[in-house]
Amino acid sequence: MTRDELEAVIAQTAFASLVGARLDSFAPGSVSLSVPLWPELTMHLGNAHGAVLGFLADSACAWAAASVAGQVVTAEYKLNLLAPGVGELLHAQGDVLKSSGRVVTCRADVFAFASGRRSLIATALATLMKVP
Amino acid sequence: MTRDELEAVIAQTAFASLVGARLDSFAPGSVSLSVPLWPELTMHLGNAHGAVLGFLADSACAWAAASVAGQVVTAEYKLNLLAPGVGELLHAQGDVLKSSGRVVTCRADVFAFASGRRSLIATALATLMKVP
Amino acid sequence: MTRDELEAVIAQTAFASLVGARLDSFAPGSVSLSVPLWPELTMHLGNAHGAVLGFLADSACAWAAASVAGQVVTAEYKLNLLAPGVGELLHAQGDVLKSSGRVVTCRADVFAFASGRRSLIATALATLMKVP
Amino acid sequence: MTRDELEAVIAQTAFASLVGARLDSFAPGSVSLSVPLWPELTMHLGNAHGAVLGFLADSACAWAAASVAGQVVTAEYKLNLLAPGVGELLHAQGDVLKSSGRVVTCRADVFAFASGRRSLIATALATLMKVP
Repeated sequence: MTRDELEAVIAQTAFASLVGARLDSFAPGSVSLSVPLWPELTMHLGNAHGAVLGFLADSACAWAAASVAGQVVTAEYKLNLLAPGVGELLHAQGDVLKSSGRVVTCRADVFAFASGRRSLIATALATLMKVP
Repeated sequence: MTRDELEAVIAQTAFASLVGARLDSFAPGSVSLSVPLWPELTMHLGNAHGAVLGFLADSACAWAAASVAGQVVTAEYKLNLLAPGVGELLHAQGDVLKSSGRVVTCRADVFAFASGRRSLIATALATLMKVP
Repeated sequence: MTRDELEAVIAQTAFASLVGARLDSFAPGSVSLSVPLWPELTMHLGNAHGAVLGFLADSACAWAAASVAGQVVTAEYKLNLLAPGVGELLHAQGDVLKSSGRVVTCRADVFAFASGRRSLIATALATLMKVP
Repeated sequence: MTRDELEAVIAQTAFASLVGARLDSFAPGSVSLSVPLWPELTMHLGNAHGAVLGFLADSACAWAAASVAGQVVTAEYKLNLLAPGVGELLHAQGDVLKSSGRVVTCRADVFAFASGRRSLIATALATLMKVP
């Protein structure tokens, strides 16, 4: 899938629009995106909701997989939450670890930017299936 | 945490309001919630976005843990996506598997209701830390 | 795969022999096995090593998947350790949650028997690929 | 925990002796180990059993955590199997991603060496609890 094709998929993904996701970088096997940390994306303690970090991690993995394998579906993902997500912006970097016959395995790191300073707040592993 | 205390936490969780989550049932160690499947919660293929299923699973686990352990934070969760989430309503059931000194381990199943018919669409395991 | 076919695979699995694994029950989509808790399978604190619980969980999932889908390979598994594994015997129950076109998703629970009393010590989710 | 203290723990870990594990490198937050790929560690297809890769990943994570946090217990780990483990030697590298008040989160990569050539065969994320 090319960058333009991925942008078209993202434009049709209503939930990506709801949270305000934007594709930041695109290379084969390596994709990044960001989401502004609106108040609507927080939990009762004021930091980013875990599901928003899940969205970032899942999308970074799926889009990185799509960049090398075209249409994919997520079979599973696992997310470790390392620190509270506070600041202005959330950013995720997704990388393909392995693309085999039918499966793509990806890793993603999620960062928060607070006053311009970046910190790692979550990390994920995901398994995606190529759509034949 | 009592049901009223949990309802108060949910009311302060902006992201839960954004997706339209509602607590359905509450018992010590067992909690369920649902989210209407609005178009805004879908991905480009028209089914529920994986992050929405992640929200349901993560919340079901965290709320079940809170029902026995009070304030908790999610250390990690893992979500298997079993079938496309299509229909009118998404529902998640969370159960505490084990509550030890500092850790609560929970399982959640996520279901879709389409024309009133229920199907299992995702399942999760989560590790939560009690807040001292 | 029939029970006899699975027994033949197990007999050829050297690591299963090394740890002393035995198939306990077999039905389509539901398989159980056990391992005597020899001293060689423990860690420095005297309880079962996490990798042995991983073996039980992984095998329970793979064998349950094989019972409905024939030859499979494990794409990933995730194991939560709930309590120290102490006693005479370790037992795992694996169940198929979903078998779709190419993927089988399974759950396993691992139990320890101490003085005949059973306790849940670990639980797992696994994703397996059907071999075409 | 110092290298000598960790070596003493490993010497008391019967299962580590059973599989023939050896600590290869030790630095605060970064530890590696290896296991010779004996026939006893294989499955019916001749490659390394998934539980052996689980042992390597789990140990690399636990030992890396111990190097910065002393005594720890594994709460959970998740392992993605990327390629068959074939060759003479299996090697795992574990790194601490985050050590917070009570939790240490680690990543491990597992490699196989065949005819001296290294390939990535598995990757893991693990959550460990500090023992107070």
